Amino acid sequence: MQHLPSAQPADDSYPSRGQCRSALRPRIDPVVYAAPSANAPLDSDRVERYRREGYLVMDDLFSATEVESLQAELQRLRSDPHLHESPLSITEPGSGALRSLFQVHRCNPLLRRLAADPRLADIARYLLDDEVYIHQSRVNYKPGFRGREFYWHSDFETWHVEDGMPRMRALSVSLTLTENVEQNGPLLVIPGSHRHFVQCEGDTPAEHYKKSLQQQEYGVPSDACLEQLVAEGGIRSVTGKPGSLILFDCNLMHGSNGNITPYPRSNLFLVYNALCNRVVAPFGTQPARPEYLSSRAQIEPLAAAPRFSLESV
Amino acid sequence: MQHLPSAQPADDSYPSRGQCRSALRPRIDPVVYAAPSANAPLDSDRVERYRREGYLVMDDLFSATEVESLQAELQRLRSDPHLHESPLSITEPGSGALRSLFQVHRCNPLLRRLAADPRLADIARYLLDDEVYIHQSRVNYKPGFRGREFYWHSDFETWHVEDGMPRMRALSVSLTLTENVEQNGPLLVIPGSHRHFVQCEGDTPAEHYKKSLQQQEYGVPSDACLEQLVAEGGIRSVTGKPGSLILFDCNLMHGSNGNITPYPRSNLFLVYNALCNRVVAPFGTQPARPEYLSSRAQIEPLAAAPRFSLESV
Repeated sequence: MQHLPSAQPADDSYPSRGQCRSALRPRIDPVVYAAPSANAPLDSDRVERYRREGYLVMDDLFSATEVESLQAELQRLRSDPHLHESPLSITEPGSGALRSLFQVHRCNPLLRRLAADPRLADIARYLLDDEVYIHQSRVNYKPGFRGREFYWHSDFETWHVEDGMPRMRALSVSLTLTENVEQNGPLLVIPGSHRHFVQCEGDTPAEHYKKSLQQQEYGVPSDACLEQLVAEGGIRSVTGKPGSLILFDCNLMHGSNGNITPYPRSNLFLVYNALCNRVVAPFGTQPARPEYLSSRAQIEPLAAAPRFSLESV
Repeated sequence: MQHLPSAQPADDSYPSRGQCRSALRPRIDPVVYAAPSANAPLDSDRVERYRREGYLVMDDLFSATEVESLQAELQRLRSDPHLHESPLSITEPGSGALRSLFQVHRCNPLLRRLAADPRLADIARYLLDDEVYIHQSRVNYKPGFRGREFYWHSDFETWHVEDGMPRMRALSVSLTLTENVEQNGPLLVIPGSHRHFVQCEGDTPAEHYKKSLQQQEYGVPSDACLEQLVAEGGIRSVTGKPGSLILFDCNLMHGSNGNITPYPRSNLFLVYNALCNRVVAPFGTQPARPEYLSSRAQIEPLAAAPRFSLESV
């Protein structure tokens, strides 16, 4: 690595881009912050698998009726013409169809309840051993026929460089609301990759997020780094029925191939960050991304709450 | 369908593009031309599966040593700098790496022997019930990391419109020389789709082949046609070890997703056409594609031959 100290703040534990060269660096943070406990919301097998592989798939967390209710809500959002013009939305260049809608944990009552539901939030509190808040939330609609690939990346690398998330003490939850099969561009993960920090090359261009949400060019691993991660951990596809929940560490290397099948995909995406890990100034050279991509002005710790039914608002 | 009789030759059994509208039409040709026979080079189960699904996968046709020999030959071709400048090759725009090399059954002694090997040619002669020749041959190298998708298409539609192949009496053989897994963009097929002819919309631009070999925009099915084929037959990925052979009907709808994994893919591709089905003038409006894409001036029926060893030239 060629790292000029003046180019980054002194307390940057994970320098990337700018003067950095492509390299794998050891993770200096824990994956599981909590001590083992008999009252943990995850059994010890699952905790160990999460620590080792960086992700977990759970298909038994929500009832069929709850999943249907969430599917209906996503359908409603998609057909709401007002949302298509919202600054919180990303639409398809050609058709104008809704592709992503951000900050849903603030704007939508049902999804706000989902974010605070103890079936999710208690797992996040336990693994991160702190109060938690939502760093980012969104719903994604990925079309069939011409679905684009999303290249390999660690979310943490972007959140650190572009948002100022100091350390690896966050996790993501992806709740699939359509069936994911091998052929329709499911999430691909590299088990164990979360234990390395992949330094990336290149200067971040201004307003990178406007492009990176559609195709990421900066903050992606070099071919050599990726080969090394895959040689160690292999690649797994995350497939499953609607309602499957994928819990993954903020630094897990993941991506997805494109999708030429007629089967579309949609999911809900929530990022839980430890309160003590709230964002500071970005570690990269560009101004912080907007609030809807990265909670900064409005940090709202999720209140401990009884388990909700998500069947209706 | 809106079909203006004057726009196509009178004997066009499968009009497509030009004035045609997107539609599924029944196939009017057999899939298996031969009568059942005790001496058939395929057992009756395989013949019936091929008739019903339009493809077969066989992983027991070549010895490990033969597969290694073919792999070494592909490697040699790839590193031959002379071939990169050949008009028979397609190279990557950026790196100049070899992506496809055509007409290998004429130029390469080992691949010439492979094309004539009775393990392949006898199956083609049997299913097509005629003498056969090679309509097209090529080796394909598909890179990892940034491998492009190839959209759904029927080869026959292109061969008919752009090359003048009169009827559905041809089949393709794809011999995989790297491992195909679910994640590295394997061949996707729609079982049973070969029993429909999918009329496509749009006028073929001049020299379409120069672009279509990298990305096909014309001669692809509409979303509605594709949905109907998938609703009937589903989608299957063809995965397998190096040396697996995929035999598929000329009209089977197939494609592949992109490939963001580090795993490259390479294969050998041979198209056997019945001698009685040799190409005539193209059924579309453009001049015939060049000889290296579609044998026309040099139609050479494959001689009946003893089984070769492909271990060396």
